Amino acid sequence: MALKDSLTVAGHLTTAEVAALTGGSLVGPGDVSVAGVAPLDRAGPGDLSFVASSRYLPYLERSRAAAVLCKPEFANAPGGPAARIVTDDPHQALLAVLPVLYPEPAAVGGVHPTAVIGAGTRWDDPVAIGPHAVLGRGVRLGRGVRIGAGCVLGDGVQIGEDTRLHPQVVCYPGTVIGDRVILHAGVCLGSDGFGYVPGDAGTGHRKIPHVGRCVVGHDVEIGANTTVDRGSVDDTVIGDGTKIDNLVQVAHNVRIGARCIIMAQVGISGSCVIEDDCILAGQAGLAGHLTVGRGARVAAQAGVDRSVPPGTTVFGYPARERREAFRTLAAMNRLARIAGRLEDLVAEHGEDAR
Amino acid sequence: MALKDSLTVAGHLTTAEVAALTGGSLVGPGDVSVAGVAPLDRAGPGDLSFVASSRYLPYLERSRAAAVLCKPEFANAPGGPAARIVTDDPHQALLAVLPVLYPEPAAVGGVHPTAVIGAGTRWDDPVAIGPHAVLGRGVRLGRGVRIGAGCVLGDGVQIGEDTRLHPQVVCYPGTVIGDRVILHAGVCLGSDGFGYVPGDAGTGHRKIPHVGRCVVGHDVEIGANTTVDRGSVDDTVIGDGTKIDNLVQVAHNVRIGARCIIMAQVGISGSCVIEDDCILAGQAGLAGHLTVGRGARVAAQAGVDRSVPPGTTVFGYPARERREAFRTLAAMNRLARIAGRLEDLVAEHGEDAR
Amino acid sequence: MALKDSLTVAGHLTTAEVAALTGGSLVGPGDVSVAGVAPLDRAGPGDLSFVASSRYLPYLERSRAAAVLCKPEFANAPGGPAARIVTDDPHQALLAVLPVLYPEPAAVGGVHPTAVIGAGTRWDDPVAIGPHAVLGRGVRLGRGVRIGAGCVLGDGVQIGEDTRLHPQVVCYPGTVIGDRVILHAGVCLGSDGFGYVPGDAGTGHRKIPHVGRCVVGHDVEIGANTTVDRGSVDDTVIGDGTKIDNLVQVAHNVRIGARCIIMAQVGISGSCVIEDDCILAGQAGLAGHLTVGRGARVAAQAGVDRSVPPGTTVFGYPARERREAFRTLAAMNRLARIAGRLEDLVAEHGEDAR
Repeated sequence: MALKDSLTVAGHLTTAEVAALTGGSLVGPGDVSVAGVAPLDRAGPGDLSFVASSRYLPYLERSRAAAVLCKPEFANAPGGPAARIVTDDPHQALLAVLPVLYPEPAAVGGVHPTAVIGAGTRWDDPVAIGPHAVLGRGVRLGRGVRIGAGCVLGDGVQIGEDTRLHPQVVCYPGTVIGDRVILHAGVCLGSDGFGYVPGDAGTGHRKIPHVGRCVVGHDVEIGANTTVDRGSVDDTVIGDGTKIDNLVQVAHNVRIGARCIIMAQVGISGSCVIEDDCILAGQAGLAGHLTVGRGARVAAQAGVDRSVPPGTTVFGYPARERREAFRTLAAMNRLARIAGRLEDLVAEHGEDAR
Repeated sequence: MALKDSLTVAGHLTTAEVAALTGGSLVGPGDVSVAGVAPLDRAGPGDLSFVASSRYLPYLERSRAAAVLCKPEFANAPGGPAARIVTDDPHQALLAVLPVLYPEPAAVGGVHPTAVIGAGTRWDDPVAIGPHAVLGRGVRLGRGVRIGAGCVLGDGVQIGEDTRLHPQVVCYPGTVIGDRVILHAGVCLGSDGFGYVPGDAGTGHRKIPHVGRCVVGHDVEIGANTTVDRGSVDDTVIGDGTKIDNLVQVAHNVRIGARCIIMAQVGISGSCVIEDDCILAGQAGLAGHLTVGRGARVAAQAGVDRSVPPGTTVFGYPARERREAFRTLAAMNRLARIAGRLEDLVAEHGEDAR
Repeated sequence: MALKDSLTVAGHLTTAEVAALTGGSLVGPGDVSVAGVAPLDRAGPGDLSFVASSRYLPYLERSRAAAVLCKPEFANAPGGPAARIVTDDPHQALLAVLPVLYPEPAAVGGVHPTAVIGAGTRWDDPVAIGPHAVLGRGVRLGRGVRIGAGCVLGDGVQIGEDTRLHPQVVCYPGTVIGDRVILHAGVCLGSDGFGYVPGDAGTGHRKIPHVGRCVVGHDVEIGANTTVDRGSVDDTVIGDGTKIDNLVQVAHNVRIGARCIIMAQVGISGSCVIEDDCILAGQAGLAGHLTVGRGARVAAQAGVDRSVPPGTTVFGYPARERREAFRTLAAMNRLARIAGRLEDLVAEHGEDAR
């Protein structure tokens, strides 16, 4: 059982209830009770487990789980728990079960007495503002907002309904956040962009003032310690439904569309436009002022130095269309194997031009 | 208008005043009042906008801005605001206008009652120490220092005049910071370097104590969630006027010179020396104990495995002098296109040596 | 002298005591007192320095250090301090000296009055809980634990004995941490993994609940601002004695074995298995669901797209066995030099197939 022993929250289901919840069909007893979910090899007698691939059948056979969600072909596989809920997609089925077995702990509402609240800051109850949170002047929070311990919201920050900030999020002044957003610990929104007017030789760089905002849409999730700079004059914008992983860098004036997936440690340089439904895989980097067209994909670690047309996938450094990049890579590997003989051929024809 | 609506600060200028401030020449009325700056397509009737390239002329034509800063060739471009301030470099001109229209909010001086101040800590008034900040023993702050909410300064930290720490900066004990430095949220200075004496097979790695300091010069800016380790015995040093972006890693004993530009997610391994006026572009990585010579540039995502001579630009992985690296890349792409025919040629001469 | 002037801790040794501590042999006076350690060029008259390579002999000659640790061949090198402690490995010898000259400041025990402690939280004295720390409900701390200023521990977090959290560490609910662990500032453990069920075209991604834990073994050290996600159903696990540098990303369900070394800015995707004694160098990235076999090494910036056999070293992008990767790189560089002639050869044989 995963998290349960350390939390006081509780939930349990009978196998018949699991079948009803997931739309699966029950094989074996319907009155077995489960209170947690765990992988086959670590499940105990109070746990529901799952098997979606035949390579896990040996684990099924030895599993101590109380019941399993399984594909039709495993309904009668030998050994393991007798109670089985048969469904075409056990992982999808888990999504129906998890919120019941692991209900969110009820938010502790109200404002912790150690929170510091600036003048003119207002909210629609209920909200939860954690210990040592600091809200500046003129902050606005929608109904259902939860602010974790130690968060710092600058003057004039606006946050929509049912948005949750985990501990130690920092929002610089003027940051705007939509509804149902989740910001993980250590996220920093609205810091000054990295912009300077280069000094003459030997003199210092002059900082460009940043007066644009950082604007985050609805249903966005942003991972731990990710940073999003404010715009210089215009805003930095993250569109509705976009999900951003941990330790990502989003520079000033970037505009990210809706429903993008941006994986860990990606870096997006200033003034890039990422259109809707793009996927940027881990550690990819984008040079400044590029457009990644709607639905395009950037492979992990790719280094993007020009705009990416809609719907295409790019790969490598410098990033090129995937098939072309793979073809070049494969050709390189083949040529490397015959490099010596190619050198011999050239030597034999040594009088050639060039 | 960018940030203005959410803050109480205010500033406004007439178009005649904008012309005077920027050294531009006024076309059209001099008594139009502007209170903010915005891009052409988002400017409202109280905003100053700007146009530096002909590709924005369609936006100029439709702009609702009150006035624009524009290059001489656009002084009479059709449509858009009649009030124009003509200048050779509208972006540079903005730098003169922004601080007037967006004055820094006056710092709230004094020590917030929730701050915790250690024994022997002293400062020169005025300073501003925010809510929940924690200062250890023997900390020294210069005049004009601002410490954001939730910052933690270890014992013996020294900070020069007019330096600003945004919220949740952590300085480990003994860290030294110069004048007019800006540290963004979540910066960590002076954490232990990553150094161990390898254990024998099966035994643990032994931690090398780190007793050097992290020393930051004057006029440095460091971006959000960047980390700079302390030195092992010697110090880690960041030179005057150097600017570091978000999520950068600077390892122990690194010495960075003056006026360097280090972009987001760069990683600098232990004991590297970065001389004055270098530029390291985003996601570049440097192996340990290298020197990057004065004025050298490292391209984005480059992987540097040897020292870089002064004034050169390196590119790729492993990083090589840029022209050489580009030549190799271009040759590879050309050869990939004829790989099949090269294989045929080798097959025809199959009896060759090697 | 490195950190000493800014801290109140103190320690000093005579040169005879240094010789005894390090097992070295004394040359010159045994009654010289040292109170700090510094490199040759920055050491003052109260400092011990060290010389392990002949390229530092010019610095030795001019050094103002009180004494040096040196290799046997430098015992009588001209100039510099007369007091020398001769040892085969001066760096190793430093490890014996540093803890005496730089004793850890005594931890300030007890619970700071500004800390917020949830119901049912318990510990074994002595512990130290810093200012503004926030502990949820049902937290358990072992004897000797130190929690830095501003740390936030969610409900049910468990921490073993003598573990130290530097300021502003966040542990999400249910996180489990072993004995003698060191977590640097800004570390985030147990945040939700990056998992969504893709929405149909135009509809949103649905968040997969994460109910697994983040479990950290004994003797682990984790660098500043590093993030480790919790598991989805299973746990994310970091094995005993593993050391992780700054700004590393460890995704959900990853299992890292014992005594691994994971350098700065590495990214490990979901469900990877890193077996014991592996080394992942800086900025390396691993795709999901891979296994890195026991004792394997991944070079800096490598992009790993398939599992790595035990004991091998991989390099490049996509990462391949090191010798093979180097051979390919070398062949590419040689072919690039004759690309023009190879094109000529192909042109001369233009009638070939393909």
